[in-house]
Parts: sequence; C-alpha cells; structure tokens
Amino acid sequence: MAVCVVGSVALDDLKTPKGERKNLLGGSALHFSNAASLLTDVKLVGVVGDDFPVEGFDLFKKKNVVTEGLEVIKNGKTFHWSGYYEDDMNIAHTVSTELGVFADFTPKIPESYKKCDLLFLANIDPVLQLNVKKSMGKIFTMLDTMNFWISSKKNDLIKILKEIDILLVNEGEAKLFTGIDNVNKAALEFLKLGVKYVIVKKGAYGVSLYSEDFYFSLPSFPIKEVTDPTGAGDSFAGGFIGYLDYIKEINKKNLKTGLAYGTVIASFYVEGFGVEGLENVSKIDIEKRLNLYKEYVTLP
Amino acid sequence: MAVCVVGSVALDDLKTPKGERKNLLGGSALHFSNAASLLTDVKLVGVVGDDFPVEGFDLFKKKNVVTEGLEVIKNGKTFHWSGYYEDDMNIAHTVSTELGVFADFTPKIPESYKKCDLLFLANIDPVLQLNVKKSMGKIFTMLDTMNFWISSKKNDLIKILKEIDILLVNEGEAKLFTGIDNVNKAALEFLKLGVKYVIVKKGAYGVSLYSEDFYFSLPSFPIKEVTDPTGAGDSFAGGFIGYLDYIKEINKKNLKTGLAYGTVIASFYVEGFGVEGLENVSKIDIEKRLNLYKEYVTLP
Repeated sequence: MAVCVVGSVALDDLKTPKGERKNLLGGSALHFSNAASLLTDVKLVGVVGDDFPVEGFDLFKKKNVVTEGLEVIKNGKTFHWSGYYEDDMNIAHTVSTELGVFADFTPKIPESYKKCDLLFLANIDPVLQLNVKKSMGKIFTMLDTMNFWISSKKNDLIKILKEIDILLVNEGEAKLFTGIDNVNKAALEFLKLGVKYVIVKKGAYGVSLYSEDFYFSLPSFPIKEVTDPTGAGDSFAGGFIGYLDYIKEINKKNLKTGLAYGTVIASFYVEGFGVEGLENVSKIDIEKRLNLYKEYVTLP
Repeated sequence: MAVCVVGSVALDDLKTPKGERKNLLGGSALHFSNAASLLTDVKLVGVVGDDFPVEGFDLFKKKNVVTEGLEVIKNGKTFHWSGYYEDDMNIAHTVSTELGVFADFTPKIPESYKKCDLLFLANIDPVLQLNVKKSMGKIFTMLDTMNFWISSKKNDLIKILKEIDILLVNEGEAKLFTGIDNVNKAALEFLKLGVKYVIVKKGAYGVSLYSEDFYFSLPSFPIKEVTDPTGAGDSFAGGFIGYLDYIKEINKKNLKTGLAYGTVIASFYVEGFGVEGLENVSKIDIEKRLNLYKEYVTLP
C-alpha cells in the first residue's frame, strides 16, 4: 500500500488578500504528498537544489514521505514561483517562474517505488509523464496537466491519455483542450481519447467526475476564510488518491468517497499559507469535517 | 394549497450562442409560474399592455395559472427586455429595457389570493414588495432582488428582509449587498438582518442554503446544451416554492428536497428558448431526472 507521486517541489513567494509570504514550501508533488500522507504511504520523485530548506525535509520526515526519489542538485536552485491572488481566489497571477534545477528534471524512479499501487503524475512535461508511466508499467494512474502543456504539447498529452486511468483538469483546461465551451460535453471528449475517468475541478465550486458508467458531482466545503488557494488542486488530488490507496479497491463507491476526502482535505489546505493549512490537522479532524460535509450535501 | 407570485410579465428579444429570438414570453413572474405550476396551483399578480400576445394567456390557461391579478393596460406596452449572452452563459448583457406599463406597476392583490399559503416576491422595487407583503399578512415569503435595488434602495431592502422568510440572491448580489467577498460569510450577514433562510444561486454551479440551523449545498444538473439561461433563477424558485407548497410543510427535509426540485426544473428550463424548455416536460419527466440527479450527487 503506497502512492508514488512525480512532480515539482518548490519554494513560493505569494501574496493573497490575507497576507504576503516568501519562500513557502510549495510545488505540486510536495502539496500532494503533504495531503496524501494523512491517509496512506507516499513515495516522492522530484528535484530540488541544495538551497531547499531543512523545514522541507523535516515536513517529509514528519509525514513519513519517502524521499529516496528526491534528487538534491549541488549548487542548484530550487524551482521558485512568485505570484499573487486578488479577490477572485480562483485565479493565480504569476509574477515570475524560475525553474532552476526543475528545468532539467528527468524523473528517476527508485526500484523500491515500483511496488507502489497508485501513481500520481503531477503537472510536468507530458513527455516526462509518459516516460515515468512506461517505467512504472500497469499501475493505476492519475494525471494532472495545465494550459501550458495543452497549448505546446497537445499531441504528447493525447499519447499519454491512452495510458492513464484518471485525468484531472480544471474547467478552463478542459475547454482549451477540447475547444468545447460546455464543460460537461468537453469532459466526455476525454473519455473518447482513452481515459477511464475525468475529474473536473471547479475551484471554489466543487468537483465533478465523468466516466462511461457514471457521473458524480460534489460542491465544495463552505470555507469562511480562504487564506491561500495555492495547493488546493494538489491537496484535493492527495486526499482523493490517498483514500483510494488506503481503501485498496477502485470502484464506483470508493471513487465517490475519495472525491469527498479530497474536497475536505483541500478545504483545510486553503485555510493556511503554503502547507500550514494541514499543520495541526489530524485524521480525526478530517473525519469530523467529512461527517459535517456529508450533512451539508446529502439529500433526504 | 396555492402559491402567489408578484413580479414582471414581459417579452424578451435575445441572442445566445445557440440562436436569436424575438418577442419570447418572459418576465420573472411568468417564468416562476410556468415552473411552479408543474407542482402546485399558482396565482399571478402582474401587469401587461394590450400588446401581450394570446400565446401568453394560452400558456397561463394551459398551466392553470390564475390571472385574476394580471392587469391588462389598454394602449399600454408590455415590459420589453432585449439582451444577449456570450460564451459565459452566467452573464446576461442588456441591450435595452423598455419598462412600458411596468414603470407604473402597483400590485393589486385580489381578495381570493389572500388564501395562498406561500408568496414569492419576484424581483421588483422593494417598496412595492413591502406593500404586497403587508397586504398579504403572515404568509411564508421568499424574496428575490437584484443589483439595481441593492445599489439604489438598500434601506428599503433592509426593511423588508425583517418581514420575509427566505432571501434568494446570486453570489454577486450577496457580495454587493454585504461588501463581503467570501460568499459563505456574506450569506450569514443576511441572517443577522432577520431573514430565516438565504439561498445563494451560483448559476451553472448550483445552489447553497444558509440558516441558523443548517447549511445545505447542491451542484447543478449536468446539462450538455444550454440554449437560453433566461429564467433559470425564476424557474428554480418556481420548482423550489412549488414543491414546498405541494408538500405543505416547511422543514429541513422538505427545504432540501425543494432545492433539488428547483435545480432539476431549472435544468429543463435552460434547454429551450423562453418557456420552451418546459413545453413537453411532464411531472414524470421531472421525477425521472430527479432520480438521476440523486444518483449524481449522493455520497455512498
């Protein structure tokens, strides 16, 4: 029982209506690991420079995240993102992106990772994602991507869609990829490309899952203070995949429950800057909010 | 068992990405009546000019909507709205608004209407809404409003909020009224002003209900072709209030189920221009889609 995640580990400078912070722990693989490790074992593949702070390694240690696959490049600079959010916290504005050692990232999967049951390919170059997928074999896989790759490497994305099980996109990405303005119609296009499940993230509005067999949709948990939306999507993915790995069986029922775990964990996530939202959150806190959430969304 | 609705009856010229139509039957009270009459008896209060087409009266007749309170002004012009929607069907762009006889609308409530069990005050001047409410007495009341009244007559709105039971707003209206950017926090402000329940419409994203006792949220039904979003909010209100009137008791369970009826009826509504979305929809069709909807949103 373990999840393997491949993606970015970064440092973020950011500003939201709630404040401003520098050098926050960030990156998709880090946020995913931070969330998924609440529910299951996580093995991370990524790269950082030797400027990556000790608090980052401490976080992985505290969360029992295996970092055998986290390369540390001597004299290298860790991927650094700088950006801000205005009143509409659904939109991240980028000020600067310094790729650093991430520019030459070639994921190397340790032998011990090949026993993982689930794989999350966080948002990186789809060519690298395909290489990782091939080296990992028949593992159940969820893939995230972004506008940049849809615009620049769509053919590579189409190739990997045939190889994966779940595609995770937001509404804008689904529309950009398919050229279809109706998100429900757009999502179904991905199924034609060989994906089994499509999960569409709708920011503060919740999430929908599309498959040949069934459709499922959940609103978000009603947060009163969003402090920092960075990592919301990756923590959602972590909660979702973490639950599936914990429960061991991928079926309709567990996929639906997984979406609820993802939703609830993401709701904690955005309540703090960087990784702080989950800092003092226990498994019991998750279960408590999940029970509340069920009351909020269950029809009589 | 009957619902009384006070609001506009209009003719609409509109353009959406799916086509262009002129002189469609429209107006908030008309759309509400068209929807609510699927589930219960409706009595309408409004005003039209003698240019209002026979098809409008035929619709009310077919749906058994009582029109004793619908004034017809000789040589008057019916309220005429002209507008368009672009790709984001959540936003209506107004080209022109000719109030016509609606400019001097003074709702007169027929004596026979005073036995109604529920009242829907559709979007009109809050001063008129308060007068109607006073003349109807202690009836359970839902009120809709819009940005225009929030900006120009906020004090009158605050007055009537103390007198009604449910406030129906969209996200933008909730934020504008309260000056609070977080919709969940904004909604709770209305409870402090004396409203028992606040329903926040989120367009294609669903709906949330806030009260002192409980919170409830539903995503929308996944429509593949939105033809014309005009009347979505009013048909939602019609389905919701229509169900509450039909089921007779206002409690937590019925409010939740009512939100589902509203959601499902609104999903039919936007599939056609003007009132066409419900044209061939029977009670059985509603129940069928409701059952499907429950599968789409119910956690295991």
